[in-house]
Amino acid sequence: MNKHVAIVGSGQLARMMALDGIPMGLTFSFVAESSEDTVCVQGLGKIVIRGQQTPKELFEALGKPDVITVEKEHVDTQLLTELETFCRVAPHPRALEKFKNRNTEKQFFQSVGVPIANFRCVENKAALIDAIETLEKPVFLKSQEEGYDGYNQYKVTAENKAKIIEEIVFPSRWVAESFVNFEREVSFLAARGTKGEIVFYSAVENYHRNGTLLRSLAPAPNLPKSMLEQGKKHLSHILSSLDYVGLICMECFVVEDQLIVNEIAPRVHNSGHWTSKGSLTSQFENHIRAVCELPLGSTYTSVNSGMLNLLGTTVTADQVSSSNTFLTLYGKKTKPKRKLGHITVIHKNTSDIKASLNLLEDIAYPS
Amino acid sequence: MNKHVAIVGSGQLARMMALDGIPMGLTFSFVAESSEDTVCVQGLGKIVIRGQQTPKELFEALGKPDVITVEKEHVDTQLLTELETFCRVAPHPRALEKFKNRNTEKQFFQSVGVPIANFRCVENKAALIDAIETLEKPVFLKSQEEGYDGYNQYKVTAENKAKIIEEIVFPSRWVAESFVNFEREVSFLAARGTKGEIVFYSAVENYHRNGTLLRSLAPAPNLPKSMLEQGKKHLSHILSSLDYVGLICMECFVVEDQLIVNEIAPRVHNSGHWTSKGSLTSQFENHIRAVCELPLGSTYTSVNSGMLNLLGTTVTADQVSSSNTFLTLYGKKTKPKRKLGHITVIHKNTSDIKASLNLLEDIAYPS
Repeated sequence: MNKHVAIVGSGQLARMMALDGIPMGLTFSFVAESSEDTVCVQGLGKIVIRGQQTPKELFEALGKPDVITVEKEHVDTQLLTELETFCRVAPHPRALEKFKNRNTEKQFFQSVGVPIANFRCVENKAALIDAIETLEKPVFLKSQEEGYDGYNQYKVTAENKAKIIEEIVFPSRWVAESFVNFEREVSFLAARGTKGEIVFYSAVENYHRNGTLLRSLAPAPNLPKSMLEQGKKHLSHILSSLDYVGLICMECFVVEDQLIVNEIAPRVHNSGHWTSKGSLTSQFENHIRAVCELPLGSTYTSVNSGMLNLLGTTVTADQVSSSNTFLTLYGKKTKPKRKLGHITVIHKNTSDIKASLNLLEDIAYPS
Repeated sequence: MNKHVAIVGSGQLARMMALDGIPMGLTFSFVAESSEDTVCVQGLGKIVIRGQQTPKELFEALGKPDVITVEKEHVDTQLLTELETFCRVAPHPRALEKFKNRNTEKQFFQSVGVPIANFRCVENKAALIDAIETLEKPVFLKSQEEGYDGYNQYKVTAENKAKIIEEIVFPSRWVAESFVNFEREVSFLAARGTKGEIVFYSAVENYHRNGTLLRSLAPAPNLPKSMLEQGKKHLSHILSSLDYVGLICMECFVVEDQLIVNEIAPRVHNSGHWTSKGSLTSQFENHIRAVCELPLGSTYTSVNSGMLNLLGTTVTADQVSSSNTFLTLYGKKTKPKRKLGHITVIHKNTSDIKASLNLLEDIAYPS
């Protein structure tokens, strides 16, 4: 039988998973937060607005899926655990739980021997003051939950220190992180199947703007082999120790010859969007294959890929298409900073990729 | 502005064009023959059932598209010509007209110097008898219009000759073709843009069963360079002489060191389905790029591809997925001989492709 997959979430990641899964004969349904939040998945399957449904009612409203998966880490893991009574949930809620909270996540990294920056759990004013004084400066203060893409995050400087200490109201839960003097940011994407098999994608180099991913390059140019091996080793530990099923993204800092793991996204990730063109099997298809207990697809790549995010700005195919340039829009309304789409560039070397991304950035972000 | 594209036809080819075009920000509508004929394009755009609409009413029902294109050659070219009053039609109806009728098509091939098998236009009993007597045997008799995938075609043998001569009722329009003692069948796919630029895909080797495509291999194994050049030259002549815009497929016989052109499909073609995985830009995306006046995408390929059609049989992703195997289903109900989907295999050499296709054929067509 062709499987039915429910996705918790209804944004562009759900859209791209469904668009890759539908041709395989799979059917989809989606859990949306609100009716305004459904534009990306219109026409791709039934959309259920999250309300007061019991887990059983939700399972039935979703069309009794064979498996439930997620497009985001900020999910109700309690609900997912209850849904496990009715069908498989992948990745399983115990794995998702680890990455919902920055403090839990960092403790987990330490428990599996993955190197991370110094940090303090900050849950009262004394701990806040101590962290700011003792960690390497400038300290970054991030809320333990719900923070992403630069939201709910502060860079503590000599100037704003007193203000931050005064203004943050406790009880509230934060982590304070040491400054990491990194040379570049890279991410590692992998998918793990139900039999424990793992496929890795090429490592990706990422450029952020105001805390949000702007550009990716894959494979990450000139990343030493030793660092690729470190990345694979760390990610393998993480995946195996959680019996994780699905796609995962590990974001890292490169500091001299060492990788410092920053955070995990337990889902398909923006820094893997290039895989739709640059790899034989996209991250979206491999996530769906993994959660549907299908063999994982080859991540073979023979080209260099670049990705430019469209953040609060959009373009038309007329403006940006070229022989090696591919536009993907998500169908969302324009709003400042919102992820509206991305552009993928394929060439045979990194310098051409960079040149193309520069040209595209000028078009997408006219000054 | 993002363009709106209307497709005449609502089958799997329309589906795959829309699935590749929607992420580019394009919107679609479809002309279906009947309400039973819409399953492939559900959810992908407005579906208009062809009825008694005037061209203007049809144009308006389709949402005033920027361009109208087709997924099949058996179209009402008179209607398309009238629709040109309202918007661009690509490929233009004068080009489509050439390939709707086998006699017109063959005369066109002769006019542009493209080699074809000996043939006779058969529109009365005397011509039928003469053709059967004079052409190389066994003669193939094909209706001038509406014949494809082995329908409306006869292989004339010593045994059935008298019966065919007796039973075919005139007035009716046929072509009789000489037997071609070919070694293999190959197809050439190309897309031509509005500025006259052409991109070619790797030549494809095809295997038919009962007149319908069963398997494709791309690139066609060991096809001599001289033959690739002949194919490109013939197809360039055809495209340029018609000022053709869009994707085209030229089916040929290989006879010793010569290509004999069999027929043209003025549209995306089953023998190009491998391009969705095996080429940087699929045939579907390049057709859409061409008709939307966008730059054509690179047809770069670094792998060997194989394609197995699912004819009147279907499989699930569980049955056939592997690291290098990709299933595409069209969402249609099972019916004998109906094209229900295809499977694409990617490897680095032809022998692995053939071995995989053999295994897949055993699964899809259990004896």
